[in-house]
Amino acid sequence: MPQLRKDPIIGRWVIIATERAKRPKDFKVIASSPPEKECPFCAGKENLTPGEVLSVKDNNGNWRVRVVPSVKPFLKEEEKNWKKGRGPYDLMNGIGRHEVVIETPSHTGNMADLEVDNIKDVLYAYCERIKAIEKDDRMKYVLIFKNYGWAAGGGRIKHSRSQIIATPVNLKRVKEELEGAKFYFDYRERCVFCDMIHQEMEQKERLVLDENGFIALVPFAPRFPFEVWILPKEHSPDFHKINYDSLYSLAGVIKKVLVRLKKTLNDPPYNYIIHTAPFRRPHSNYWSTIDDDYHWHIEIIPRLTQVAGFEWGTGFYICPSLPEETAKYLREA
Amino acid sequence: MPQLRKDPIIGRWVIIATERAKRPKDFKVIASSPPEKECPFCAGKENLTPGEVLSVKDNNGNWRVRVVPSVKPFLKEEEKNWKKGRGPYDLMNGIGRHEVVIETPSHTGNMADLEVDNIKDVLYAYCERIKAIEKDDRMKYVLIFKNYGWAAGGGRIKHSRSQIIATPVNLKRVKEELEGAKFYFDYRERCVFCDMIHQEMEQKERLVLDENGFIALVPFAPRFPFEVWILPKEHSPDFHKINYDSLYSLAGVIKKVLVRLKKTLNDPPYNYIIHTAPFRRPHSNYWSTIDDDYHWHIEIIPRLTQVAGFEWGTGFYICPSLPEETAKYLREA
Repeated sequence: MPQLRKDPIIGRWVIIATERAKRPKDFKVIASSPPEKECPFCAGKENLTPGEVLSVKDNNGNWRVRVVPSVKPFLKEEEKNWKKGRGPYDLMNGIGRHEVVIETPSHTGNMADLEVDNIKDVLYAYCERIKAIEKDDRMKYVLIFKNYGWAAGGGRIKHSRSQIIATPVNLKRVKEELEGAKFYFDYRERCVFCDMIHQEMEQKERLVLDENGFIALVPFAPRFPFEVWILPKEHSPDFHKINYDSLYSLAGVIKKVLVRLKKTLNDPPYNYIIHTAPFRRPHSNYWSTIDDDYHWHIEIIPRLTQVAGFEWGTGFYICPSLPEETAKYLREA
Repeated sequence: MPQLRKDPIIGRWVIIATERAKRPKDFKVIASSPPEKECPFCAGKENLTPGEVLSVKDNNGNWRVRVVPSVKPFLKEEEKNWKKGRGPYDLMNGIGRHEVVIETPSHTGNMADLEVDNIKDVLYAYCERIKAIEKDDRMKYVLIFKNYGWAAGGGRIKHSRSQIIATPVNLKRVKEELEGAKFYFDYRERCVFCDMIHQEMEQKERLVLDENGFIALVPFAPRFPFEVWILPKEHSPDFHKINYDSLYSLAGVIKKVLVRLKKTLNDPPYNYIIHTAPFRRPHSNYWSTIDDDYHWHIEIIPRLTQVAGFEWGTGFYICPSLPEETAKYLREA
């Protein structure tokens, strides 16, 4: 069973994935992508994955998107959860969920190459899974992310997919965003993300796209070169409460951004993460409701630099490109 | 001039290193190490670097360690610093210092292969530079770190070296550690690091080394496999106030840990970072002095996994090995 351990200084939870535990010789630094493994995600290979928890089908009954439990889950569903302390340390068992979203029946690698309609189905699957997992009271957060390409943790199977992890604890970065957004709201009674959107629409220099209710921009203080955020222009804390009519528009914006990154940077490895409000968060104060201060968004991070070594340990980022310039490249791509 | 920009949500400062700004085509993902460049750090090549700000010499007047300004500084010294806001955004000019510590006159790549006495000189140079930089009132923090190997950001020159960056702002992770340590102290009136050390000496299972006043351990909740921390057993917030008689002992422990990592993991790329208290920090409260709650330490992070993709965006870490097991490998190496 995986464990969740809490760093006693910073209070950050870490998953110790014992079931994937490796010996020293297994940690070979494999710089370039090793040969591909047999793909268990293509149509016709359904028997190679656990049974699906959700699928989106076409009119002929063929699946377009499948969600299956991970065969090597970081966190597992269990009946009972426990927490305990030892000296200054806290740990709990690693309850949670870990699922894989198979985004297409065909062996396409990059989401950039999927049809908009297909990406819409993927987004729909995300929403449905979050809604289902939210019913489990033990779960605090659902993290949706994608690793594309070897250097981004995409592994040895190229088939386009994303991952869903449900955790019994809140994630540090999300907590920081919530606290930062609350702090901003408490003083200004405005959402910091909405303010950011207005500023970007006025200044325009970091704007990548603005269409059908969504905006794509290079953040003012990005951690990584060509980092792009996609946000709904209308205030909304919860990704999964999106109006399903908007999914196609969002899919269109995602597709365009990914295609432009692919074109501009020659098919770079990338990660994306959906930041959404946690389940059952408390009212932040007397003046605001829980819906006022947070704003869901998608962060897309091309993995381009190796220079960024020490950021891991410092929380200090050095971005070697000017956000206004990278936005221009992406606008004009 | 580089810029410092503040993320309006989380409040994290990011350096926008405009002088290193790159065009899209410069971001090739170079997975494996490219050919070495001519080394400007070897003895006899002193004319290839800016003049030294500090050197440690042997009895014959030959240098053993040199500290020189970086030729591509992330931050620069300037007479005036400015801060300004625009809408929800804050920025300031990138004043600071960026220096390179050339650790040996010979073309040795890994600090693991240096003599203990040589490592001691490097530590001495760190301390002296921190003491000198502290006098500059504009500086809040000095970060000392090392990138070894291509995958750890070590670049195209193999010569063993480390870097010193002085910043006019506090670093996020250090701030978090300070706040976490203060929170712990406020309740228990004990240093969380000291408690951790006692716990580790009692439990022993995560201990790597315990000698001459220093302890090396695998943290209870590591972010990365084979992560190792080195701490002084006696409480001390400021690295640079170390008793110089202890430098040799510390150098010995660092050498042993690096040699064991090299042996166990087949010469892995790694980063290390010294976490020390910031300059001029305020008294935390009525009961404690500024010296009570923080404890300097060195974090060594081998760069082994590519799986760690989405950690960048989430602050959520998955460590694929059991700390008790990795500590055992390192104890027995």
